[in-house]
Amino acid sequence: MSTPALPAVPRVLRGWYVLCTSDELGRGDKPIQRSLYGAPIVLWRGADGRPAALVDRCPHRDVPLSYGCVKGDHVQCAYHGWEFDHRGHVQRLPALVGEADKPARRAQAYTLREQQGFVWAWGDPDSQAQGEPFTFPFADKPGYLVVRQVMRARASLHAVAENALDVPHTAFLHGGLFRNDSATRNRITCKVERTPQRVQAEFIGEPRPTGLVARILSPSGGVVTHFDRFHMPCVVEVEYALGEENHIVNSAALTPADDYETVLYAVVSVRTRLPAALVRPVVQPLALKIFNQDAELLALQTRAIGQFGSARYVSTEVDLLGPHILKLLTWASKGTELDEARQVYRAEVQMEV
Amino acid sequence: MSTPALPAVPRVLRGWYVLCTSDELGRGDKPIQRSLYGAPIVLWRGADGRPAALVDRCPHRDVPLSYGCVKGDHVQCAYHGWEFDHRGHVQRLPALVGEADKPARRAQAYTLREQQGFVWAWGDPDSQAQGEPFTFPFADKPGYLVVRQVMRARASLHAVAENALDVPHTAFLHGGLFRNDSATRNRITCKVERTPQRVQAEFIGEPRPTGLVARILSPSGGVVTHFDRFHMPCVVEVEYALGEENHIVNSAALTPADDYETVLYAVVSVRTRLPAALVRPVVQPLALKIFNQDAELLALQTRAIGQFGSARYVSTEVDLLGPHILKLLTWASKGTELDEARQVYRAEVQMEV
Amino acid sequence: MSTPALPAVPRVLRGWYVLCTSDELGRGDKPIQRSLYGAPIVLWRGADGRPAALVDRCPHRDVPLSYGCVKGDHVQCAYHGWEFDHRGHVQRLPALVGEADKPARRAQAYTLREQQGFVWAWGDPDSQAQGEPFTFPFADKPGYLVVRQVMRARASLHAVAENALDVPHTAFLHGGLFRNDSATRNRITCKVERTPQRVQAEFIGEPRPTGLVARILSPSGGVVTHFDRFHMPCVVEVEYALGEENHIVNSAALTPADDYETVLYAVVSVRTRLPAALVRPVVQPLALKIFNQDAELLALQTRAIGQFGSARYVSTEVDLLGPHILKLLTWASKGTELDEARQVYRAEVQMEV
Repeated sequence: MSTPALPAVPRVLRGWYVLCTSDELGRGDKPIQRSLYGAPIVLWRGADGRPAALVDRCPHRDVPLSYGCVKGDHVQCAYHGWEFDHRGHVQRLPALVGEADKPARRAQAYTLREQQGFVWAWGDPDSQAQGEPFTFPFADKPGYLVVRQVMRARASLHAVAENALDVPHTAFLHGGLFRNDSATRNRITCKVERTPQRVQAEFIGEPRPTGLVARILSPSGGVVTHFDRFHMPCVVEVEYALGEENHIVNSAALTPADDYETVLYAVVSVRTRLPAALVRPVVQPLALKIFNQDAELLALQTRAIGQFGSARYVSTEVDLLGPHILKLLTWASKGTELDEARQVYRAEVQMEV
Repeated sequence: MSTPALPAVPRVLRGWYVLCTSDELGRGDKPIQRSLYGAPIVLWRGADGRPAALVDRCPHRDVPLSYGCVKGDHVQCAYHGWEFDHRGHVQRLPALVGEADKPARRAQAYTLREQQGFVWAWGDPDSQAQGEPFTFPFADKPGYLVVRQVMRARASLHAVAENALDVPHTAFLHGGLFRNDSATRNRITCKVERTPQRVQAEFIGEPRPTGLVARILSPSGGVVTHFDRFHMPCVVEVEYALGEENHIVNSAALTPADDYETVLYAVVSVRTRLPAALVRPVVQPLALKIFNQDAELLALQTRAIGQFGSARYVSTEVDLLGPHILKLLTWASKGTELDEARQVYRAEVQMEV
Repeated sequence: MSTPALPAVPRVLRGWYVLCTSDELGRGDKPIQRSLYGAPIVLWRGADGRPAALVDRCPHRDVPLSYGCVKGDHVQCAYHGWEFDHRGHVQRLPALVGEADKPARRAQAYTLREQQGFVWAWGDPDSQAQGEPFTFPFADKPGYLVVRQVMRARASLHAVAENALDVPHTAFLHGGLFRNDSATRNRITCKVERTPQRVQAEFIGEPRPTGLVARILSPSGGVVTHFDRFHMPCVVEVEYALGEENHIVNSAALTPADDYETVLYAVVSVRTRLPAALVRPVVQPLALKIFNQDAELLALQTRAIGQFGSARYVSTEVDLLGPHILKLLTWASKGTELDEARQVYRAEVQMEV
């Protein structure tokens, strides 16, 4: 246990991930660096306004292209001035007499989409993208207060996703803020449904949580409609309706900067009878406090997994989504079409909340 | 040599080790974390006053239980509120409908003993302890000044034990404090005796050391009785009688927090004609200075072993105990009953001091 | 890519390397530590003024001898006072009754030469040195301003050597200081010649560079004579003659402290019509600025090679010397006498500068 190592995680490269926000990718002459599962990526916005992304290594001498600068639509290496276009082709090779571009000299390129203020990349460079990135359903909807926030957690995508969608821990780690650990608990029914692209839990009969956030939003109690969803390979979504007036959708695109380093691009959409000017200053600090509690715990979890060299992970029935998320990621990372992976799974579970 | 790694050490898990002092394990609601050969251990004191220790990893999601809190006699995980008793059994599993405890959900438990102000653990969790921990013979004896001190060294248990019991280095590393490197040395006889549980050196004919400590204790010189002992798997003991009146027993239980990180729980017992109020303020700072010289050197030794990837360790006859300690630890770590390991070994060596 | 590792480099141990300057190895009683390909080396100057160097590990207990002190012509270990001479033989072993020196107790010794203010070592300890160290031809020559400088770069010897002798990058990384990236470039001819001991490029038809350094030295332009040379296993040499009056030889002995940590012992010799009092305060800061730009880039290159786990290195015709240097180092590190390695290679390449 002296030289601990974190075990490998399932890496799904064939999928869409957020690399940065549109704001982070300005129009300056300096490219930016991001990473996906440890692979450094250089991003820049060409003179034509289009974002571009390459593997962040000049094929010539391994220097990060992000150390260079933007020249028109190209990125230029700082070392010998090689210039690459958005496809990774060499458009200029100073000093050389002859053709600049040759296949061996090209940098690998990522397919990008820019939408809803995010720059998404197909995770596998130089390959054919499939489908389109996730659209946040309430990110642009009139009548909703929308708050965006970029956060980081020192944990795997899977651990962050499970944590974001897990109900039982809220009464302990966030005791008093959202739910409470009370002697008298209510038994509710949870319907779980898993398809190859998504796993969802629906909570039936859940009373309004007793913590501070819920009491602010719905002082009179009321019936709760509650869904937790994971969309492959990286989106978590918690949807709450409290009474008639309150609708909260807490989503985030999770980007595995590395196996155990996850960036959360969160989009919180709230519709409530309270004015936005009242909701935002109360809800945002509470949400950040809750996230910081999760992030601190997840970092300790990662550290322990490293110390022991593996994850133990003994699950029970009330770990509703985590084990399914791990299955979906594992199957997809193997790239094979397993029979079990194609089937729709449904179950009902009792839980005391 | 670019990516150096420290070589493995013999790990004797089947033995008693000090994990903390009784004082360090208070009655608060926060557990503490210690480690043994790199394995994190959570310790707490239940409402009944009894100490308890488990492997510091919640079986559910790998979160350190030491990040949680004490609930009555149990420790509670901070993540989902699982509660464990001193055997590692699950006493509460919130949200789950059904039985909390199942063998797969249990944490591994350490057998403990609390005596003489120390909490000892059998190093192998969930296994049958054998025998009892070492008793410091002069820790509670009337007429003795007893000083306790917890220290750390960045070196293996074996290197720390050899260093603590080694005579020749004192004239160099601690020159002037204890012994001196003089041109005129005295030839003395050393009797070495090794049994499976202990190795001891007796020094015959040793004059009173010429350094500062010895001159304070025995200004008139006198005959020296001197034993150095290692008790398996972790106790070092240096016993000195100087003349009629002075008796010093310098012992320490060594705890391998990791392969190359050793905690020393030292117990120094002194009987002398000088009053304790005089001895303590002189001897304690000198002892700490000597220890700090050893600790700095041992850290450099460890660093060099890492750089070279292995220990060279060319021993001579006057390395009286170190090679025997390594044999005892190596044999015990293999868990087999070798013929050689069962035999009693005796030798006489000449040494110039 | 989560636990990146730098790939191995060709290590030529059978060759002469600078370990320190004569000034760094004073006459005090403290030895100094240097390293070669990660192997720590202790150096000291005996009472007789002669430098000595051993593998920096006491054979007894692995303690660095550089933590000890100089005793007459010997180095003494801080732990048990063992004393070693310049051959690594044990000259004193305190406490032991009997002979101090035995082959198993000896430290490995380096063959040294001290010349031109540098202490050179044959890189393979306890082996027969061949030939003599490199002599800097203009380090002591009358009429030359000579500036010496010790610098460090976080990159392999090969990467540092290629960088030091590479022409095309100067227009970009050092744009404006030495060369410029201009739309109108001149096509020149480069003659490359490689023998087993050396590779050299001669540049024919090169106009005076347009950057600041060249304009100071030769305001009227003039014809340029320019050679870049690599002498096995570690010397780079850039020789410029600008017009009749200016002669600049920029040399450095490169010492691989580790695979990716190179120390440069630079010797710059300048003969110009300008007085030294004018040249030094202008040229030295510019040279250091250029070196710092190279060092920052080389560190990023090394980091990227570690992140990707290997170097990609797609070379073109105008990478005149780097690929040949790598061949010479690789062949020599294998220690075999390949046919290809023995042949003289000559080529002519066109380059736009």
